[in-house]
Amino acid sequence: MPITQSDSTLTMSTSGDTETDPPVPLLASRLAGAPGGPATVAALVGRATEALTTAAALRGGPLPAQGPAEVAERVRAALGPLLPEPDASAEAVLERLTHALTLGAADPAHPHCAAHLHCPPLAVAVAADTVASVLNQSMDSWDQAPAATALETEVVAELAGLVGYDGSGAGGVVTSGGTESNLTALLLARDHALPGAGRHGLTGASGTARPRVLCGEVAHFSVQRSAALLGLGEDAVVTVEVDERHRMRPEALRAALERVRADGETAVAVVATAGTTDLGGVDPLDAVSRVCRESGVWLHVDAAYGGGALFSPRLRTLLTGIENADSVSLDLHKLGWQPVAAGMLLTRERALFAPLSRSVDYLNPTDDEEAGYPSLLGYSLRTTRRADVLKIAVTLRALGTAGLGRLVEACHDLALETADLVTAHPDLELLATPSLTTVVFRYRAGEHADSVNARLRRRLLEQGRAVVGRTAVHGRVWLKLTLLNPDTTADDTAALLDEVARAGTAERTVPEETR
Amino acid sequence: MPITQSDSTLTMSTSGDTETDPPVPLLASRLAGAPGGPATVAALVGRATEALTTAAALRGGPLPAQGPAEVAERVRAALGPLLPEPDASAEAVLERLTHALTLGAADPAHPHCAAHLHCPPLAVAVAADTVASVLNQSMDSWDQAPAATALETEVVAELAGLVGYDGSGAGGVVTSGGTESNLTALLLARDHALPGAGRHGLTGASGTARPRVLCGEVAHFSVQRSAALLGLGEDAVVTVEVDERHRMRPEALRAALERVRADGETAVAVVATAGTTDLGGVDPLDAVSRVCRESGVWLHVDAAYGGGALFSPRLRTLLTGIENADSVSLDLHKLGWQPVAAGMLLTRERALFAPLSRSVDYLNPTDDEEAGYPSLLGYSLRTTRRADVLKIAVTLRALGTAGLGRLVEACHDLALETADLVTAHPDLELLATPSLTTVVFRYRAGEHADSVNARLRRRLLEQGRAVVGRTAVHGRVWLKLTLLNPDTTADDTAALLDEVARAGTAERTVPEETR
Repeated sequence: MPITQSDSTLTMSTSGDTETDPPVPLLASRLAGAPGGPATVAALVGRATEALTTAAALRGGPLPAQGPAEVAERVRAALGPLLPEPDASAEAVLERLTHALTLGAADPAHPHCAAHLHCPPLAVAVAADTVASVLNQSMDSWDQAPAATALETEVVAELAGLVGYDGSGAGGVVTSGGTESNLTALLLARDHALPGAGRHGLTGASGTARPRVLCGEVAHFSVQRSAALLGLGEDAVVTVEVDERHRMRPEALRAALERVRADGETAVAVVATAGTTDLGGVDPLDAVSRVCRESGVWLHVDAAYGGGALFSPRLRTLLTGIENADSVSLDLHKLGWQPVAAGMLLTRERALFAPLSRSVDYLNPTDDEEAGYPSLLGYSLRTTRRADVLKIAVTLRALGTAGLGRLVEACHDLALETADLVTAHPDLELLATPSLTTVVFRYRAGEHADSVNARLRRRLLEQGRAVVGRTAVHGRVWLKLTLLNPDTTADDTAALLDEVARAGTAERTVPEETR
Repeated sequence: MPITQSDSTLTMSTSGDTETDPPVPLLASRLAGAPGGPATVAALVGRATEALTTAAALRGGPLPAQGPAEVAERVRAALGPLLPEPDASAEAVLERLTHALTLGAADPAHPHCAAHLHCPPLAVAVAADTVASVLNQSMDSWDQAPAATALETEVVAELAGLVGYDGSGAGGVVTSGGTESNLTALLLARDHALPGAGRHGLTGASGTARPRVLCGEVAHFSVQRSAALLGLGEDAVVTVEVDERHRMRPEALRAALERVRADGETAVAVVATAGTTDLGGVDPLDAVSRVCRESGVWLHVDAAYGGGALFSPRLRTLLTGIENADSVSLDLHKLGWQPVAAGMLLTRERALFAPLSRSVDYLNPTDDEEAGYPSLLGYSLRTTRRADVLKIAVTLRALGTAGLGRLVEACHDLALETADLVTAHPDLELLATPSLTTVVFRYRAGEHADSVNARLRRRLLEQGRAVVGRTAVHGRVWLKLTLLNPDTTADDTAALLDEVARAGTAERTVPEETR
């Protein structure tokens, strides 16, 4: 599709002083929503995706075969200095920076890029995301997002239903991801347990019993980070003992809650995890929820990763009991194949969002609300907020829940097959059978295993051959494959494991003192 | 551009059990980054932008001529029920939901949509945003975003330089917007003033002097919201008296800081505003920064709106003194014409981000950092984080700073002209001369002015004729035009003011008791 009005140096019609101002290129200042704007967007996307395809072929692997300093140098060269006047046509700039970013990308669609919960997005979701950018609705008031407000309300109710909540009574909001969802949930729980905290603060309420948050030993670090942010302090987090599969022990949780009460402290929330980042472990939600209900403490389930199992008839039994939680984090940019961001926080009842409710003169005045204008302002920590819900809605309809479930199962199957490949490999050892779609393993290197595994991973990065994850388990370095690409096959992961083994052998022969 | 592989019901190659599983449409599950994926994205964007153009023409105005209930009903009809299997082809779903969302959009590119700091985005920025979605880099570790990590580092340094910081020593991060930027800044300030807060919490430090945050009376509501979130409490916020143009009085700030100290309390931060949401007022940053320096208190400048003036040689003197702040919020999705989100938090020195620093085994292990792998994890409240920096970089290069400055000046000129039109209009009254690009005014209706203005605004919404902002000033209802569309002319705003006046006349004739 040609760009119908080519880049030029015509002076903008809106410029106040056309006699003396230097010209602004017309294409660069064209608005996406102006007449002809959407077609311009489509034409520019055509150019940019061609540049992307060219650069991806040049890169030729899962990431650039360069270290950080060289990658940065190449980005600086492509960017050039920031000047008062533009240095080239808008198309040229777009193509040049697309080329540079693609050449230096870690490609989640490459089968050898398998380190993180960093998924390859669906083409249809990306296209929907572009529509969201063109329309640029903002979810903080109805008059910036009339239809998008309704769409988010619908999709929240649907996903709440999928969790097992009563969709019509549940609350929820689209977030930037699990970290924001967990933070928001802990804020709601804090102000539920300590009703004056939002208004008067935690120092003002003298004699307030020390607030505590309880979670498993391998919960996401955002629990500690949220506790710090909320003024509870990182050391307000009590970690509960886990079993040999890294799952919270319900009886240990009960004992921990009893100790908290005996010490005169306040249990603000229990955070259970459905899909830990490393092992994909799922806490026993049913038993945990019963303990929480007995104690009257808020249960938040971080299902940012494991929530994808809700789409799979085969895997969703792992999450039995999630419907008893007070709040749940989901991330559709993990096992949902959305471009970032597509997080979601859901609550059992809409009223649990009360601590976030605000009436702001310029956004949701009372008489407008009385006149029937809804407002999502009181559900989010953010004010301006993009309509990320569109891509989620399009994906749910384009694939159906069963279609998404089959993608989840494809990744789960791949993890099980890959674990078998690790077990059969003479140079590798497996940590545990996969729960979801991660495989934690390492290269066998005896007493040097930690440094050899850390180095072999960097070697693969430096050579642009593979992006393999790493983590620490009981203080030892382990490697990790996070398998989120439904197109990847066991042949691909077999080749990847061979890459790891070769890199391990190469690193093992390097004397320790030279590293 | 045709979709080269048409939608079909071929069974996915990755599905484990092709004999019994129902088919998944191939297009729906195609990855944006797979071979041929970028071209599929471009083709789908072409289809979607055509649907968008058609629907925008059908809408025919700045927003749908329907109330919230009808808009929601139409969205529900387009969405249809969530089913296990897809209900149509992926293209059809994308087109149908694009159509519905566009038909029900508030269009920031329409000259009569002028309520909020909700800008019409540039076509070139939208195209760059699409590239970011295809590549789906995540900024929380280098191995999910090698080049994007370098690009963000460069762009942060450039914008820090524009603020007047030493770009090489300054810190910064791309955020979801002013609210996240302000929250992050206040977190950094809290943990700077109360070093144990992050670890031990605010209740643990017994005898901690009550922390205080000071801001002008018309600062953004996110200051109170952040104080609540951070455990300081909303009533930790001390509002400082403003002058007749709603700007913080430096002498009142000095007195307030002295009272805080005399009461044995701790001043955590002063938040000055460069561009209040309603009047666009800019606090006297130079004088305010001197008072803060004398008191040794952290100065945060919320320039989410007014930061755009940095691009304009004529307007940037309004912000003199901003370079003395410890931290600054900018939003390029306001006076920067980016699709949401394109926020930025900058700090004078990189080390001021220390309270957010984290070492996480699976993201930034110490030996990787020692080996030269940079990590942006310690700059953001988020973990997974989209490469929003690409669109910002493309825009800065496509327009240059002078090009952006001319767009800012076009909006400023329009605000001044529109204010003159209000003054000349017999039925309207102006609150104050515009500082930036907002015009606060109302329809003259004597003792009924509040209810008539509130109703006329809703009348314009219901009829789909205009999106005009409203706010409260000294408890009275005022209307507001937020002029962020550089293509809008004074003829457009004159017509908009006539719409307002006609709606006001219509509402004035409705007896009060029937409303």
